[in-house]
Amino acid sequence: METVPLGEVFVSELAGTAILLILGCGVVANVALARTKGNGGGFLMVNWGWGIGVFAGVYASAMSGAHINPAVTIGFVASGAEELAPGVPMSFAAVMTYFAAQMVGAILGAFIVWLAYKKQFDDETDPANILGVFSTGPAIRSYGWNLVTEIVGTFVLVFIIFAFAGTVTGLGPLAVALLVVGIGASLGGPTGYAINPARDLGPRIVHALLPIKNKGASDWAYSWVPVVGPLIGGALGAIVAGWIPLPEV
Amino acid sequence: METVPLGEVFVSELAGTAILLILGCGVVANVALARTKGNGGGFLMVNWGWGIGVFAGVYASAMSGAHINPAVTIGFVASGAEELAPGVPMSFAAVMTYFAAQMVGAILGAFIVWLAYKKQFDDETDPANILGVFSTGPAIRSYGWNLVTEIVGTFVLVFIIFAFAGTVTGLGPLAVALLVVGIGASLGGPTGYAINPARDLGPRIVHALLPIKNKGASDWAYSWVPVVGPLIGGALGAIVAGWIPLPEV
Amino acid sequence: METVPLGEVFVSELAGTAILLILGCGVVANVALARTKGNGGGFLMVNWGWGIGVFAGVYASAMSGAHINPAVTIGFVASGAEELAPGVPMSFAAVMTYFAAQMVGAILGAFIVWLAYKKQFDDETDPANILGVFSTGPAIRSYGWNLVTEIVGTFVLVFIIFAFAGTVTGLGPLAVALLVVGIGASLGGPTGYAINPARDLGPRIVHALLPIKNKGASDWAYSWVPVVGPLIGGALGAIVAGWIPLPEV
Amino acid sequence: METVPLGEVFVSELAGTAILLILGCGVVANVALARTKGNGGGFLMVNWGWGIGVFAGVYASAMSGAHINPAVTIGFVASGAEELAPGVPMSFAAVMTYFAAQMVGAILGAFIVWLAYKKQFDDETDPANILGVFSTGPAIRSYGWNLVTEIVGTFVLVFIIFAFAGTVTGLGPLAVALLVVGIGASLGGPTGYAINPARDLGPRIVHALLPIKNKGASDWAYSWVPVVGPLIGGALGAIVAGWIPLPEV
Repeated sequence: METVPLGEVFVSELAGTAILLILGCGVVANVALARTKGNGGGFLMVNWGWGIGVFAGVYASAMSGAHINPAVTIGFVASGAEELAPGVPMSFAAVMTYFAAQMVGAILGAFIVWLAYKKQFDDETDPANILGVFSTGPAIRSYGWNLVTEIVGTFVLVFIIFAFAGTVTGLGPLAVALLVVGIGASLGGPTGYAINPARDLGPRIVHALLPIKNKGASDWAYSWVPVVGPLIGGALGAIVAGWIPLPEV
Repeated sequence: METVPLGEVFVSELAGTAILLILGCGVVANVALARTKGNGGGFLMVNWGWGIGVFAGVYASAMSGAHINPAVTIGFVASGAEELAPGVPMSFAAVMTYFAAQMVGAILGAFIVWLAYKKQFDDETDPANILGVFSTGPAIRSYGWNLVTEIVGTFVLVFIIFAFAGTVTGLGPLAVALLVVGIGASLGGPTGYAINPARDLGPRIVHALLPIKNKGASDWAYSWVPVVGPLIGGALGAIVAGWIPLPEV
Repeated sequence: METVPLGEVFVSELAGTAILLILGCGVVANVALARTKGNGGGFLMVNWGWGIGVFAGVYASAMSGAHINPAVTIGFVASGAEELAPGVPMSFAAVMTYFAAQMVGAILGAFIVWLAYKKQFDDETDPANILGVFSTGPAIRSYGWNLVTEIVGTFVLVFIIFAFAGTVTGLGPLAVALLVVGIGASLGGPTGYAINPARDLGPRIVHALLPIKNKGASDWAYSWVPVVGPLIGGALGAIVAGWIPLPEV
Repeated sequence: METVPLGEVFVSELAGTAILLILGCGVVANVALARTKGNGGGFLMVNWGWGIGVFAGVYASAMSGAHINPAVTIGFVASGAEELAPGVPMSFAAVMTYFAAQMVGAILGAFIVWLAYKKQFDDETDPANILGVFSTGPAIRSYGWNLVTEIVGTFVLVFIIFAFAGTVTGLGPLAVALLVVGIGASLGGPTGYAINPARDLGPRIVHALLPIKNKGASDWAYSWVPVVGPLIGGALGAIVAGWIPLPEV
């Protein structure tokens, strides 16, 4: 297999992460902001929105192996893999390329959601709803336990992504999409499931910068939890996945 | 591959678009009209109805490559593709055949929904519910920003459809169906997501013509937004899809 | 291919239809009866229950081509097909075998739902909820228009099932399951979507016979609609499917 | 095929069952506990959470054939199969390995859910909600009829799993996941659908042992029902599956 240039990796990860954030932050906007057609659509609808965000993002990002999440990239590092994706050898520069592209993609995606819901943002009066479109926050604030929740959710994500290697299906990107629907439904209750540092930090930066009328603070005090938790969980998930036996397929 | 006659293209696109509209407008009728069994079923149910409308429509329309949406057809034009579908060379006549079939199919589909929900339409007293079965409308009226929302939604649709080419799966029509579920859930909040000019304009014509007791105006002032927005978004989606690297599969 | 004995066809169709009814009538019991854990779960949950009922039933019924619905069988007759399934030549005896097995299976399935929800039936005081678990009924009674609705729903079902032949996927029974989810969500509002004569008539017989405390009448006046409508719709769907061009796959 | 060592079987089943319980008990925690983001998310969300729990668990458990449920293992015994999975010959020791791994995995999974929802458990005041996260309980208590419900649900599960052998698809673990979504939606109303002895007994032990502030009794009087019912249903399902004709694929 030919080597994929890091410029292509950058564009590929950026595109996939932007799509993920457009559909992910978009569904929260639809459910949370007051004057939308999907207001009050429920948590399961949010789970499907993020799941299909992953689904679509993975297609856009096939060239770079579709990490679209620094926790997945760190999982490849932790697993000792020789490649980050087919044709992308492991290196410090490659890992930094993934991280940078994911952050830029997340920022771009969140910005596009703001454009799509511009009138709804203008009209919204609750700062918590506005921040909630961009970034996650805890139902009960407790940095330690919030961190545990993010570690568990991301552990399951990366552990199962690595376990995909043992089963042949025709599902392609749908497998990880359904996994994300399930993790959201099952482990999203305490913290709103970042399970992806770029997904949380990128939009939080956008929230801080954009001129939204009734926005409040960007809650930087919490911002390290959805970055550190997923990185720990992703690394652990990849390492533990190496301990379970899988069939050769 | 043999060339597909344009008459077959016409029948194929017409059939697929009619099926899309039967299930799409049908689910809105079920959720919106007062005396149905699915009244108040929620936005996610509407998303699934439209998504499975695409799913079913694509099977009916396989011979013509299942555009069932002028925004997809315009995407092929904008991408500079040599064929609109396998065996359908790009030409002005072919593009017009797609557009015409999509409009006739959309009109036919919306008419069949009126038949299936005839008693519920007779019984409905809110003109907004009646128009809402046929055509989209904005949650907050602002032609410029409504246009932006329709551009973004259709951009994601056509961009990812073109990105499908880089990933082999066994999903077939399910991939685009799930994409439409997600776009609806995530980007449908401000405008009700036409993301397809035929889907909106065809039923609006049916609404204008049918003798429904309590129907109000057909809101022609808004009608250009869900036509122009998707055409722009579809063209942009196809063009930008040409900029991202995709694996050869 | 070897011929499948009609005895095997009978067992196969019976098994699949029984599974369909267990999951289908089961989900209505869960949503409609007062003292269940899923009470009030919503119309989309009912759609998924019936859709997955088809999904599971098709696996059980693979030997006979998984009609599990007389409207599908009549579609094969109307289409002029030489076989009802691979290895099952068209004949009057074969068609009668399908019909008989589907009715016996539907009766058995509805009976098993009564066993599973025995305490809930004992406890239920609303006769409409009790009949609703077994058979469909119109939201607005109008035999003519109710018939139209059942014709349209079953037309879409059988038309698309025949159109499956033009697209290769790895979805197997999932394709028809999703189609049934969508038809339910989109066209189930006026009549509760029988779209299958056995699904409605079999359980209605069970309702008439079982000693349920607060059950009311079995509404035999309506019972012909969900039999005749689906048979007409199924025949039309198969005939019209013959008119659309499909790729050779 | 090489024989899979029982140690690998143990790890594989443990991992899959733990993942099942993390996502399964997790979704109940999210819906049932008062201060979560998914509180009141509805029964269908619970069904999806358990279904995707199976989906993810099956990937983790591919090496051992992914029983992750003693009722499936007992089904293999009852069917007279020569192997419990490819490379795992039937033996008393192998069956005990499956059972032990499933129990340990279920206990581990339920414990991890407690960690992820620690603050919500601390904050919850209703003992029924707390027990409900861990173990099932009847909507109307009647040991005999509750047993019938669990038998029916598990019968459908194992019967269809054995029927999968007659149909080739590209769905892989998704097929059983959807089946579990459907069984939950359709047959989960009376008892909350254990349909898996380890899924119920393991977490009940965890409930009994953990120091949760407002927890009540662990309802040991009911605990035999979701163990015995699924074992009977699983054995019957596998036996009856042997009676239906299936195509050779």
